[in-house]
Amino acid sequence: MRDPILLTPGPLTTTLATKSAMLHDWGSWDEDFNRLTAKVRAKLLAIVDADERYVCVPLQGSGTFAVEAAIGTLLPKQGKLLCLANGAYGKRIAQLTEVMGRRVTVIDFGESAPVDPAAVAQALARDPEITHVALVYCETGTGILNPLDAIAAVVAAAGKKLILDAMSAFGGLPLALATLPVEAVIASSNKCLEGVPGMAFILVQKDALENAEGRAHSLSLDLHAQWKYMERTGQWRFTPPTHIVAALDSALDQYEQEGGQPARLARYRDNCQALIAGLEQLGLRPYLPAELQAPIIVTVHAPQHPNWNFQEFYRLTKAHGVIIYPGKLTVVETFRVGCIGAIGQAEMAMAIDTIARALRAMDIPC
Amino acid sequence: MRDPILLTPGPLTTTLATKSAMLHDWGSWDEDFNRLTAKVRAKLLAIVDADERYVCVPLQGSGTFAVEAAIGTLLPKQGKLLCLANGAYGKRIAQLTEVMGRRVTVIDFGESAPVDPAAVAQALARDPEITHVALVYCETGTGILNPLDAIAAVVAAAGKKLILDAMSAFGGLPLALATLPVEAVIASSNKCLEGVPGMAFILVQKDALENAEGRAHSLSLDLHAQWKYMERTGQWRFTPPTHIVAALDSALDQYEQEGGQPARLARYRDNCQALIAGLEQLGLRPYLPAELQAPIIVTVHAPQHPNWNFQEFYRLTKAHGVIIYPGKLTVVETFRVGCIGAIGQAEMAMAIDTIARALRAMDIPC
Ligand SMILES: Cc1ncc(COP(=O)(O)O)c(C=O)c1O
Ligand SMILES: Cc1ncc(COP(=O)(O)O)c(C=O)c1O
Repeated sequence: MRDPILLTPGPLTTTLATKSAMLHDWGSWDEDFNRLTAKVRAKLLAIVDADERYVCVPLQGSGTFAVEAAIGTLLPKQGKLLCLANGAYGKRIAQLTEVMGRRVTVIDFGESAPVDPAAVAQALARDPEITHVALVYCETGTGILNPLDAIAAVVAAAGKKLILDAMSAFGGLPLALATLPVEAVIASSNKCLEGVPGMAFILVQKDALENAEGRAHSLSLDLHAQWKYMERTGQWRFTPPTHIVAALDSALDQYEQEGGQPARLARYRDNCQALIAGLEQLGLRPYLPAELQAPIIVTVHAPQHPNWNFQEFYRLTKAHGVIIYPGKLTVVETFRVGCIGAIGQAEMAMAIDTIARALRAMDIPC
Repeated sequence: MRDPILLTPGPLTTTLATKSAMLHDWGSWDEDFNRLTAKVRAKLLAIVDADERYVCVPLQGSGTFAVEAAIGTLLPKQGKLLCLANGAYGKRIAQLTEVMGRRVTVIDFGESAPVDPAAVAQALARDPEITHVALVYCETGTGILNPLDAIAAVVAAAGKKLILDAMSAFGGLPLALATLPVEAVIASSNKCLEGVPGMAFILVQKDALENAEGRAHSLSLDLHAQWKYMERTGQWRFTPPTHIVAALDSALDQYEQEGGQPARLARYRDNCQALIAGLEQLGLRPYLPAELQAPIIVTVHAPQHPNWNFQEFYRLTKAHGVIIYPGKLTVVETFRVGCIGAIGQAEMAMAIDTIARALRAMDIPC
């Protein structure tokens, strides 16, 4: 049987070409693999117009590992982080900063409002000890798009440094480091770039990294050491996920062939519009208003019907070849449907059709 | 052209079946994937006869990440680690413990001697503050086999806990947790199990883990939290390297089909013997005496000849389809040749032949 399509915010459906790039073994010290690493690093910088002030440091592990590495390496021991949270991933940044014993203060904007630049400006004015600000570009917990440019301007005006979790945005949403004041951007292989999971990367200002020697709380997550070693040897400091790197290299080639960020965004926008239009025809309401909705993942109110049961709904849609995502909200009952991955209009139509069938099978009118 | 064979201690040459298992995308929350994770965890425990006192906690990232997670979670903040070092990986354990700000004392046995159990007993008697002891089973930096049973007995007799880095030994060398007193064993997917790199795992005593809540220095590397979340949900706490897990599952099936640890060890022993015999016929001397040599990786003295040049030697052997490894010794000039991976007598013969050709091309008598 055909594999189900993954309407999830990563790991997601990748092309066969991407997966086939994993059919080779690479020596992790070999110059062929070093060249692959160098190519991937350069392509990642190019995607967001990063000039020579920035370097790309790849890291083994999941996206959270890279967020932790960035904060642990860039936030001075005596620094203080202002964490702008409006969902699960913003909160996680605060949590990991606390665990490593650094100072952090959180503004919680709830789960359905974007981060408010005016509130950020106030917080920065009130607390001069803050040195860094952390923001999630697209909060994948709900799909909210945060107003990056306005927040970056406020942070820069206050003379603070911005650390951006662009995990579910990188490569999909606009991002131009040549003009945006940001110290570090974190993302992973397995979201809008449509690679497979197992590595993440940080695009970071070289100056900031130069000053960060010996600061990390962890050997494995020391971004400075990872960078220095790679600069010196061309190799990863510890065993790299060679097959994942090869898959990302292939995925990045396909990304360019598709037309880069504008083309990918256009496809995701079309996916998102088709999805929302189709859901609304079934009487299902998106959780977010259109102006806050990033074209990455759509949070949908569960039908208010006694027969509703997420487990059963999930089972039925999966049986028809579509894997959706549970909601990540604490108060309202929702489910999530992703718009990203190697999918297009055919898959969106299939998703809508499958959701309709599942609801009908559950005797929920639609 | 055929891919070169990797005579390296991981990433190594894997079977096509193992790599082909990566040709599917998996939803990381889906029960099919949860089942895969559960299966892999159970198989890893079974390989080393771990009874119900042990649990298997997989972790994203490279082997070093898992070593750091084990120490950071198991060593109390007021604990003290005795690190038994006879090579690069032993030293790395001391380094990562220092970086996380825990107390560590090192006995350095040099690069060509095994860890001496009597010296361990003395050190433990001298310093009652030591709570844990870290040992590398096979020190991959040289290929030395450490006397695990004797050291474990000494550590247990002193009432201390043993943390074992079995990265390059797990699945190849004998290891029976039902009888060996060890608190945690760390290994990764991409060595004797012949999976691909990108994840590691820790087999750890449940009691020790239960007591370790809130102790880790890092959110990402918190073994207790990783375990608790997995127990509760069946899922990985953060995005898992789905394709790597699927490859490991396949590799473990093949491992069983081959006959498990005894069969794998027999193949590696034959590989190692053929390799050493062939090298000696060419006048090349292994660095270690036979009784210290683990059948994992062989460190070889570079020929004492003015034409010797490792880069050139590497280039020539690679051009013939064989990738070897540089030495990791500080004093003596060496290179390393691995015996592990999906390789057998044919590949060993090819390696010897290739090394002979390379030496002749460099006008070095052999
Ligand atoms: C915005 C954001 N930040 C962080 C993460 C964490 O990444 P990972 O699950 O790879 O650790 C995610 C994952 O979905 C995310 O969407
Ligand atoms: C004994 C030992 N410990 C630790 C490691 C580190 O593993 P990684 O390179 O995956 O971080 C290795 C890798 O070769 C090893 O052989």
